[in-house]
Amino acid sequence: MATVSAALKSRVRRPALLKKVMTAEDTLKFFEPGQYLGWSGFTGVGYPKMIPIAMAEHVEKNNLQGKWKFNLFVGASSGAECEDRWAANDMIDRRYPHQVGRNIKKGINAGRIRFADKHLSMFPQDLVYGFYTKDKPNKKLDVVIIEATAITEDGHIVPGASVGATPELIQMADKIIIEVNTRIPSFEGLHDITMCDLPPYRKPYLVMSTEDRIGSQAIPIDTDKILAVVESNRPDCTGPNTPGDEKANAIANNLVEFLEHEVKMGRLPETLLPLQSGIGNIANAVIGNLAKSNFKDVTVFTEVLQDTFLEFFDSGKLKFASATSIRFSPDGFDHFYKNWESYKDRLLLRSQQVSNSPEIIRRLGCIAMNTPVEFDIYGHANSTLVCGSGMLNGLGGSGDFLRNSKLSIMHTPSTRPSKTDPNGITCVVPMSTHVDQTEHDLDVYVTEQGLADLRGLCPRDRAQVVIDKCAHPDYRPLLQDYLDQATKQCLARGMGHEPHMLDKVFKMHTNLLENGTMKIDSW
Amino acid sequence: MATVSAALKSRVRRPALLKKVMTAEDTLKFFEPGQYLGWSGFTGVGYPKMIPIAMAEHVEKNNLQGKWKFNLFVGASSGAECEDRWAANDMIDRRYPHQVGRNIKKGINAGRIRFADKHLSMFPQDLVYGFYTKDKPNKKLDVVIIEATAITEDGHIVPGASVGATPELIQMADKIIIEVNTRIPSFEGLHDITMCDLPPYRKPYLVMSTEDRIGSQAIPIDTDKILAVVESNRPDCTGPNTPGDEKANAIANNLVEFLEHEVKMGRLPETLLPLQSGIGNIANAVIGNLAKSNFKDVTVFTEVLQDTFLEFFDSGKLKFASATSIRFSPDGFDHFYKNWESYKDRLLLRSQQVSNSPEIIRRLGCIAMNTPVEFDIYGHANSTLVCGSGMLNGLGGSGDFLRNSKLSIMHTPSTRPSKTDPNGITCVVPMSTHVDQTEHDLDVYVTEQGLADLRGLCPRDRAQVVIDKCAHPDYRPLLQDYLDQATKQCLARGMGHEPHMLDKVFKMHTNLLENGTMKIDSW
Repeated sequence: MATVSAALKSRVRRPALLKKVMTAEDTLKFFEPGQYLGWSGFTGVGYPKMIPIAMAEHVEKNNLQGKWKFNLFVGASSGAECEDRWAANDMIDRRYPHQVGRNIKKGINAGRIRFADKHLSMFPQDLVYGFYTKDKPNKKLDVVIIEATAITEDGHIVPGASVGATPELIQMADKIIIEVNTRIPSFEGLHDITMCDLPPYRKPYLVMSTEDRIGSQAIPIDTDKILAVVESNRPDCTGPNTPGDEKANAIANNLVEFLEHEVKMGRLPETLLPLQSGIGNIANAVIGNLAKSNFKDVTVFTEVLQDTFLEFFDSGKLKFASATSIRFSPDGFDHFYKNWESYKDRLLLRSQQVSNSPEIIRRLGCIAMNTPVEFDIYGHANSTLVCGSGMLNGLGGSGDFLRNSKLSIMHTPSTRPSKTDPNGITCVVPMSTHVDQTEHDLDVYVTEQGLADLRGLCPRDRAQVVIDKCAHPDYRPLLQDYLDQATKQCLARGMGHEPHMLDKVFKMHTNLLENGTMKIDSW
Repeated sequence: MATVSAALKSRVRRPALLKKVMTAEDTLKFFEPGQYLGWSGFTGVGYPKMIPIAMAEHVEKNNLQGKWKFNLFVGASSGAECEDRWAANDMIDRRYPHQVGRNIKKGINAGRIRFADKHLSMFPQDLVYGFYTKDKPNKKLDVVIIEATAITEDGHIVPGASVGATPELIQMADKIIIEVNTRIPSFEGLHDITMCDLPPYRKPYLVMSTEDRIGSQAIPIDTDKILAVVESNRPDCTGPNTPGDEKANAIANNLVEFLEHEVKMGRLPETLLPLQSGIGNIANAVIGNLAKSNFKDVTVFTEVLQDTFLEFFDSGKLKFASATSIRFSPDGFDHFYKNWESYKDRLLLRSQQVSNSPEIIRRLGCIAMNTPVEFDIYGHANSTLVCGSGMLNGLGGSGDFLRNSKLSIMHTPSTRPSKTDPNGITCVVPMSTHVDQTEHDLDVYVTEQGLADLRGLCPRDRAQVVIDKCAHPDYRPLLQDYLDQATKQCLARGMGHEPHMLDKVFKMHTNLLENGTMKIDSW
């Protein structure tokens, strides 16, 4: 048995659990290849660190690469030092429902890792439905490893910087190991926890405002299932914040101008409606611009909070934020911990089933803003796959928010560089090579070139406004030519609702694969 | 002023409104081209008949084709004798959010009618948000024509066989005309009416069971907006029921067997969960088979009820059904009216915003079953457009149900005939030419060949099971060859998550357009 530090004692308020304290290495005996494992964590925060790293070291020391393989279930992404190291060691057979990391992406695209992404609100529910464990005799996740920042008198789990799918992973666990992180402060009081009832016994989520609490402060758990408690002294290994660049700022300007117009026209209240914002430099620019705007008492109902939200809070314009994780940079976390008292009552972390709930998103009338790989002239967007095949990042909650929000907005630079051409990739294409968001979901496109308001337009009219407002000048004539030729062909055929030339539609993409640019001479 | 019949008097319980009674022809003065019009109606029932027909006659008599054009908003489809006749007369400029009918489809595909379909749960909400009237000075629908089967003492509207978007159309109306249908019985007591609140004032829909009532029995209305009351003596002009054929029965057998398996494995209760079923002969076969199955106390939470639901009720196995419309055949309606007492307490009609509500569908854990144009090997389905371009039918509520249900099932014959080949069209394709439902939404495919359970599978594994279980033998080798070649190419490129050959992916479709069959010699 490991020694129990004073720090650990202060966090674990149920004395019986201190008898289960052991080192990460001691827990190796609980694992064997082929097991179904659950980890807490979401967008690289709140994931277990000690045991996954001990397991990776065990594999590396004993040359078990490709032999110690697991089925891994995590709410979204965990830290690179765990998940990506596992991928590099070929320790992952299946991975659901999200991933971020160079090696895991490589493993997926090489066919080594069986991956499927799923709407993040839906994954925990489908897990509890038994859809992911239906071929297993015990129908359970064999071992679930959870990071906690405290354990209550009842043995309930106080998570750290994310809730994610932890409640449902615990519901589906055969056995549980808890890593209690004493390196970071206890997050007690910041969470609103609900468990997953099954139909016909599900209840409404009675969230009518971003700050409404509907659950408890910690995750209930059957303490008999706890195999071990391990002290953790590793921080969430987040990277630096990605600041907005010139293009991102131009996009943000176009977007904020649009929101101001909607307020002026009476279609949005002056405090806006709860904002959802994705991850990355455009999202950062948008939130940064809002922090400098004239909007007041703004609320946020989103999946993940980045550093710019701290700025937004500090500007006094952000009233309340609800999310499932806070993924700050190391500097951001420092600032957050130092000013804990000023933030703690303006922030709630919920499970991803609730933070991304279609029910709540639609009720609140959120404003959703996300970045795609590409979007097409008719209103479909690709959030996941390069050239229809190669996994880039997962779907995340983009579908949850873009389907259900009052305003569903996608923003992207009009072009991205290829290896040989600074504008070699157009993000505005004739047909998305993969469709994650449909024309029935999206309202507004924004690029640095301008903003296309698609609401109420038929597909052909949408295409014209997208080409005129959003496409890069280098690609505008090509896209116009596609639309004109396709319209002529399809009208002649009596199939002109959404004109396409199926034999040529991906010509720009195949040119990219073969010649390194999407600029083609002609269709 | 028109004479007021005894029948009309008995239906209109607010005497002041009888002063507004006039003939359909008298109302022509209220209309002028370019107006935004709303009609009640959904799936060809409950639509206004007298005035649209009078307007069509006016156009025909006065050669106003192409001159008297309107923007037409109806919850879903109305009757062919109205909407399709309008399309034939070129009276429709824009049409949202659904359509059924030969001439209207022709007008859309010829580029004459600007049409966009939208998730049916979302259309009424977006209408009240002002998204469809944002370019109009008064932001309103100019005239909304509603069919009622009674008007209460308060002047509230009792709809007929559908509720659809009528509450929201009334909310957005500048002026209202009511057709009181005395040819069919009053449907009073069958409706559960809720109006549309705007964020941040929206409330939960507290439906926890298919039979829960959350609203009133009639639609509140500002009687000052009523321009006219017109008596209607025309029935809903529905066609005959489309019975299941051999293929449809094979599909239904596969499906019922799957549901029985899910019950056995404990993933569904013995009473199943509320069913949603689409329209058409496969849906009829499925419901017909369920009526003969061993399931008991089954409930239905769906968009539209067809004739086979009467059989399902009569079998004693169907406990309760909630929908937004009942679209029976003329014989079906006769049977329904004759046995009104036996049905009336087992049936509720709600607005389409509620019948198709993601919130309720997910809470109840519905089982959704719909027929696509085609689905692809990776799990995306095309519900709307032939060869990616030609409008077939609208999206309807397929996205509402398939995104949010516990089990999302698509069923189709594996092939359909082309003009020259009885199996000239494969409904299982490498890539859907249009994506309405994504791989993140669908759980199960069924054809007469078999059933593919996609849950928990990565895209490549999905593709294999779809080809093996669902594809027609004529196309299986072609699809396998596509998968094998694409996988080899994409893995070599390090993009093998969802393998595609973008230069060839629609080769079967272009062959259909050029040579009348999707059977190609090779890729």
